[in-house]
Amino acid sequence: RIDGARLWDSLMEMAKIGPGIAGGNNRQTLTDEDGEGRRLFQSWCEAAGMVMSVDQMGNMFLRHEGAEPDLDPVYIGSHLDTQPTGGKYDGVLGVLAGLEVVRSIRDLGIKTRRPIVVTNWTNEEGTRFAPAMMASGVFAGVISQEEAYDKRDAKGKRFGDELARIGWKGEERPGDRKIHAMFEYHIEQGPILEAEGKDIGIVTHGQGLRWIECTVTGKGQHTGSTPMRMRRNAGRGLAQLTELVHEIAMKHQPDAVGAIGHIDIFPNSRNIIVEKAVFTVDFRSHLLPVLLSMIEEYLAKAPAICEALGCSFEAKIVGQFDPPAFDEVLLNRIRAAADRLGYSKMDIVSGAGHDACWINKVAPTVMIMCPCVDGLSHNEAEEISPDWAQMGADVLLNAVLETAEV
Amino acid sequence: RIDGARLWDSLMEMAKIGPGIAGGNNRQTLTDEDGEGRRLFQSWCEAAGMVMSVDQMGNMFLRHEGAEPDLDPVYIGSHLDTQPTGGKYDGVLGVLAGLEVVRSIRDLGIKTRRPIVVTNWTNEEGTRFAPAMMASGVFAGVISQEEAYDKRDAKGKRFGDELARIGWKGEERPGDRKIHAMFEYHIEQGPILEAEGKDIGIVTHGQGLRWIECTVTGKGQHTGSTPMRMRRNAGRGLAQLTELVHEIAMKHQPDAVGAIGHIDIFPNSRNIIVEKAVFTVDFRSHLLPVLLSMIEEYLAKAPAICEALGCSFEAKIVGQFDPPAFDEVLLNRIRAAADRLGYSKMDIVSGAGHDACWINKVAPTVMIMCPCVDGLSHNEAEEISPDWAQMGADVLLNAVLETAEV
Ligand SMILES: NC(=O)NCCC(=O)O
Ligand SMILES: NC(=O)NCCC(=O)O
Repeated sequence: RIDGARLWDSLMEMAKIGPGIAGGNNRQTLTDEDGEGRRLFQSWCEAAGMVMSVDQMGNMFLRHEGAEPDLDPVYIGSHLDTQPTGGKYDGVLGVLAGLEVVRSIRDLGIKTRRPIVVTNWTNEEGTRFAPAMMASGVFAGVISQEEAYDKRDAKGKRFGDELARIGWKGEERPGDRKIHAMFEYHIEQGPILEAEGKDIGIVTHGQGLRWIECTVTGKGQHTGSTPMRMRRNAGRGLAQLTELVHEIAMKHQPDAVGAIGHIDIFPNSRNIIVEKAVFTVDFRSHLLPVLLSMIEEYLAKAPAICEALGCSFEAKIVGQFDPPAFDEVLLNRIRAAADRLGYSKMDIVSGAGHDACWINKVAPTVMIMCPCVDGLSHNEAEEISPDWAQMGADVLLNAVLETAEV
Repeated sequence: RIDGARLWDSLMEMAKIGPGIAGGNNRQTLTDEDGEGRRLFQSWCEAAGMVMSVDQMGNMFLRHEGAEPDLDPVYIGSHLDTQPTGGKYDGVLGVLAGLEVVRSIRDLGIKTRRPIVVTNWTNEEGTRFAPAMMASGVFAGVISQEEAYDKRDAKGKRFGDELARIGWKGEERPGDRKIHAMFEYHIEQGPILEAEGKDIGIVTHGQGLRWIECTVTGKGQHTGSTPMRMRRNAGRGLAQLTELVHEIAMKHQPDAVGAIGHIDIFPNSRNIIVEKAVFTVDFRSHLLPVLLSMIEEYLAKAPAICEALGCSFEAKIVGQFDPPAFDEVLLNRIRAAADRLGYSKMDIVSGAGHDACWINKVAPTVMIMCPCVDGLSHNEAEEISPDWAQMGADVLLNAVLETAEV
């Protein structure tokens, strides 16, 4: 078993960097705070005898040597970046539990044949720079590095420039390393494990996703002196498409979800009819045909809705992945570990996207989940218990030891 | 008649300060550009022999002396500030036409008994700091100066501090001057004069307005892992209230209008359900009972709509004025002036709010309008013809001369 108190202390220390306004964190990717969090993690790993490499996407690889250094390593990874109003555990738990696994192995004097590499994947959240899981996506070869470097945040800053600015642009080519297996341990971010009273989620599948950035363009006119019948109000386009997204998702729930979280309004003046609304639709399902049919329905109906309002409609996909199925061998290994430890478990589908979804394309990959209070995540009030954190990390330790071959 | 070419040149010179991105202007109140525009206007007036006073709200009073300096002056005023994506004429025409009237009177060697004061009222637009027509409202005693000073822009900057920063906080107490009559000349900002082929709008009434700042609060949760049935999506509250505002206004059109132009979303992340939407509803009518019944209906229905979505609803009035009726004597004077000059004219209701609406409470006030292309305003593409600009200014000259007593 890992040292639960030490893991919890590390979580609380990390949470001091980039504090939010309501008890959570704002440590968005490639901010100064992200740089500071990375340095703290590096210092802890080096104190545990690990050696760091950084690739050109800023992915951090902290290596604990194996008895046979030439064997492909076992990876444990997640992300240290957070949402603008994020919690203390989303991503962070998976990285620091990886460190805790190595610390525990050293404490126990165990030597594995394979090296163990703890990884912090850059820009998992995707808020500042879409898409989410960007750097694991580049690693897996599904997003090109040039494209990623050219992404801009809302202030127009380039991903590539910001990565260099915080000093975390490494030399290694992303994807230039062999992975024997990768484990990602994460909070559930949904209500199911808590409701079912289970300690451990065995993540068999994930939801696929499409992010559709939409632009509805009407005409910016005076709210007072423009007759109602002359208006081309892009705000009404946003309103009707908000409801359309909800209706489409409701038809397929509980197998699908849909919402709009990002909205920018132009020129955003009290006495100007909305000229332009730019917003991102987020549709997800663990069933690919359902996901595709939702996108199809939305893209078929949205232009006519806007046209009826005298507005134009444009859409582009700014994030996408298909529903992943995780590795059967590794799944059975974490099931067995949970049973050995006496922890209750259930199979579960990940509602969120994770770096594991991309790495799964290039290596056997699996995810372990622990419950979170009220299923609340992407919110500063996100909470888990120290016991929950420990139990998942224990399963991680056991499954990693077996995979890294003691 | 005034010198139309000189008026047009001044309009084009002023438009060089705070250029927009599409041919219009961004010279929002209390920005550096506003300060620069004020200095240019001051220099032109002083070259025409006028003397400046500035009050504590930054209202500029440029005085052309009368033969009997002790008589109450005749005022000609409007505003030099613009929308963030504003046109070159909204407000500016009324101020520079006032200057052109004085220039023409000097050229013609006419001496009026009463002084003539050309005024630039601060913060008419209300985009950066709500409400609109703020400093004429303080002048008229309907808004307190302390309240106005404490208004903050979206970046948290205080009105009072910004006024001092740009160097236009004067000594005079707002309202401490007697007005014999005030004239405001403005572009129509709507499509009626152009459609009816009339040169001059005789503004008999204005619309009343209520700006209702609404906050819908739900819960910021993960867009992927939160089941549809657990959501409290404030974005859907915004969507349904957008449509409610439209429906209510449509019931009363053409006697009323309604829309939402200002929307802020929190935390505004692609994968977080909207936690909070803050937006301003703009309802107007020239019939007070209609205006009040729209507000009543909206405030009666909005809370239940939000509650059904699991969201809360709060509202506060951030701008309000009742429909004004302008001075009959002055109305007849501008009607007669238009007839004398051979310009076609019609009675019209102002769709927009104007400084004249507030000054009307403390002195006989009237407005003259000229057409604008396609009724388009609060848009960089706002356009008028030099002929239209001239004809209204001719009417203004004639009515002002009669009122200032030649
Ligand atoms: N785990 C997580 O919240 N990832 C962010 C990407 C997404 O699912 O929206
Ligand atoms: N004239 C004008 O556009 N004033 C701004 C105040 C309003 O919204 O009516």
